[in-house]
Amino acid sequence: MSSLLIRNVRPMGASPVDVRVQDGRIAEIGTALAAPAGAAVEEGHGALLLPGLVEGHTHLDKTMWGMDWYRNEVGTNLTDKIENERAFRHASGHDAAAQSLVLAKAFLALGTTRLRTHVDVDTQAGLRHLEGTLRTREVLREVQQIQVVAFPQSGLLGRPGTAELLDQSLAMGADVLGGLDPCAIDGDPVKSLDVLFNIAHKHQRPVDIHLHEPGAMGAFSLDLILQRTEALGMQGKVAISHGFCLGDVGAGVSERERDALLARMAKLGVVLITSAPPSRTVPPLMACRQAGVTVLGGNDGIRDTWSPYGNPDMLERAMIIGLRYNLRRDDEIEVALDTVTHSGARGCGFENYGLVPGNRADLVLVDAQTVAHAVVSRPVRKLVVAGGRVVARNGMLSADLAAL
Amino acid sequence: MSSLLIRNVRPMGASPVDVRVQDGRIAEIGTALAAPAGAAVEEGHGALLLPGLVEGHTHLDKTMWGMDWYRNEVGTNLTDKIENERAFRHASGHDAAAQSLVLAKAFLALGTTRLRTHVDVDTQAGLRHLEGTLRTREVLREVQQIQVVAFPQSGLLGRPGTAELLDQSLAMGADVLGGLDPCAIDGDPVKSLDVLFNIAHKHQRPVDIHLHEPGAMGAFSLDLILQRTEALGMQGKVAISHGFCLGDVGAGVSERERDALLARMAKLGVVLITSAPPSRTVPPLMACRQAGVTVLGGNDGIRDTWSPYGNPDMLERAMIIGLRYNLRRDDEIEVALDTVTHSGARGCGFENYGLVPGNRADLVLVDAQTVAHAVVSRPVRKLVVAGGRVVARNGMLSADLAAL
Repeated sequence: MSSLLIRNVRPMGASPVDVRVQDGRIAEIGTALAAPAGAAVEEGHGALLLPGLVEGHTHLDKTMWGMDWYRNEVGTNLTDKIENERAFRHASGHDAAAQSLVLAKAFLALGTTRLRTHVDVDTQAGLRHLEGTLRTREVLREVQQIQVVAFPQSGLLGRPGTAELLDQSLAMGADVLGGLDPCAIDGDPVKSLDVLFNIAHKHQRPVDIHLHEPGAMGAFSLDLILQRTEALGMQGKVAISHGFCLGDVGAGVSERERDALLARMAKLGVVLITSAPPSRTVPPLMACRQAGVTVLGGNDGIRDTWSPYGNPDMLERAMIIGLRYNLRRDDEIEVALDTVTHSGARGCGFENYGLVPGNRADLVLVDAQTVAHAVVSRPVRKLVVAGGRVVARNGMLSADLAAL
Repeated sequence: MSSLLIRNVRPMGASPVDVRVQDGRIAEIGTALAAPAGAAVEEGHGALLLPGLVEGHTHLDKTMWGMDWYRNEVGTNLTDKIENERAFRHASGHDAAAQSLVLAKAFLALGTTRLRTHVDVDTQAGLRHLEGTLRTREVLREVQQIQVVAFPQSGLLGRPGTAELLDQSLAMGADVLGGLDPCAIDGDPVKSLDVLFNIAHKHQRPVDIHLHEPGAMGAFSLDLILQRTEALGMQGKVAISHGFCLGDVGAGVSERERDALLARMAKLGVVLITSAPPSRTVPPLMACRQAGVTVLGGNDGIRDTWSPYGNPDMLERAMIIGLRYNLRRDDEIEVALDTVTHSGARGCGFENYGLVPGNRADLVLVDAQTVAHAVVSRPVRKLVVAGGRVVARNGMLSADLAAL
């Protein structure tokens, strides 16, 4: 199979090295490596080398990326946004297959080689969005690892038939089972979580629960989730997305309660996924890490009926995480990048990740002096290698991928 | 003098029009305008037309924009940052003239035609940074309107001689007098503000006070500022930068106290300037506007010893303001843009501003469908016109300006 030598790059800002890629993997990292016969050679010119970026939480199926501008006139409540989206889709026939592919390709062009996406499964759309997103996963299989989460955006209990659709979703190949606010949306947290965990346990799949619930309500739901994680032996298979309640110290959750929850999460291998929204309280990044909880970064939705913000550039997400947590020192900004690289991969369970021989050759070259410089300046991606092949140059996908 | 016709642009997203520029001013806006003899003609191709962007609060003299990466290892307190910066400057001989010009030009290339910059005046550097920044103001006079604020970054009272330097600064041509935390930094709020307001009043110049003080302390200082504004007849000549205390409702300031302060600010024409930092409480944008207080946006420092963040792209600042205040609807995002356009100009006192005949021809063309689209996508500036002349295309300054 193919062989590639990338000369003169600085892994995470370290001294210059060459990287040899063979059969989709990093074969060797060292100085003055010889190009194997027939190998393609890329000159890095001293560029900063990053591992492929990781998106921990997005919604490829919802996006209107590349479409005409959607004028947002939506109300402020969570249920307003859910209802508005369902109505919009019903009227517009939004094409989740096409749109998930457009956005996944945009992620790839900007260096994201692994991502987790939540796909709406509900009694109105059925499995249509799931089918479309599974198609995108298949189309990009060789260059981008996509985890598909079957996600009950309209709630699990409110519309009979949803649990069955989720069960079918996992049977059809969804990688992860999603959940949503068992108190605030489902109104019956014990039943909601029992149904959810039973489906996941039956299929032996991980769960990823969107927990927007604030303060004491969220902490209560989180406790129920941790109980079930332990009881079902699902250690290392549970993710909490958002987890705003963990940021609500002084507003319904005491510091002692929060720290106890973090300690249990760490013990059970429950990870936390955050978009670090600037407009609300967020889980404490450094306290989570110190407690041993893996924290991943993600966009959440990108340019959809919920919000026009978001961007397939995971360096920009790292910057927003840095701004949200006031990470100013270089060592702190490296933590921001970690949430969309190593912690992202570990938290999602993406294997063979990182700039070490033997791992999948997912490489991103940018002109930046240091990691922190790359995060704050988000430079053009000079070269993106995914699964050992060059997929993008200067932000543009290669022609065959662009044509997909 | 010169004449320019820009065809087929959509002011703030409205229907396409042509814009005729004569002698540095907008002469006419209408459909199918004829090009005067000898006029240069630019085809807009339906681009969105924005007025020149306005930076309400930055520090041109501090920036390391375009220099080697500065590794930030600074402590977390305000005084750590102040001490670190003074030590860095002493050791490095940081060139405020050169650096302020580099960053001001970067602002111009991205469509910022008016800006207010705070320049450090202290007993160590004396007036060196001021002289350097005044030079930049002069060099760019015809294409960028720069307001220079003489700013006692190390405090007004702590180092004898600072007040005299500020007095000299205004005599030398600084446009505005700056102030800083009269309790937390100066330790004697009455004396600090009396000295400050006396200097401003003597020179009949506006003041712009950096008020980081939180909660009740900040509200106390703000009350003292408002008292002096009224007593000295300085209505319409006072700005509060940051004003974090106005966001501390429930943490030392009651809603009633905050609303009373906002009502007094509105009555006295005291404006509020915010960088909308995602990591801390901020004044309530919509409540301020509803109370009649003008709110401007700004970066604060850009890539300096304080922080590596910030960017001369005021559309990006509008996006961060949108994210910080959770502005998702299109009409709300138009408010975010307003903080760096019309409110920015009004709050700083920049005259002849806006897309109306007779005003200075400061124009920015971008490929975006709507204002909100421009804010979230921050597209390349296709064309920037400043004072009636084309100064940048596709993000690049014209050669004569780039060579300055």
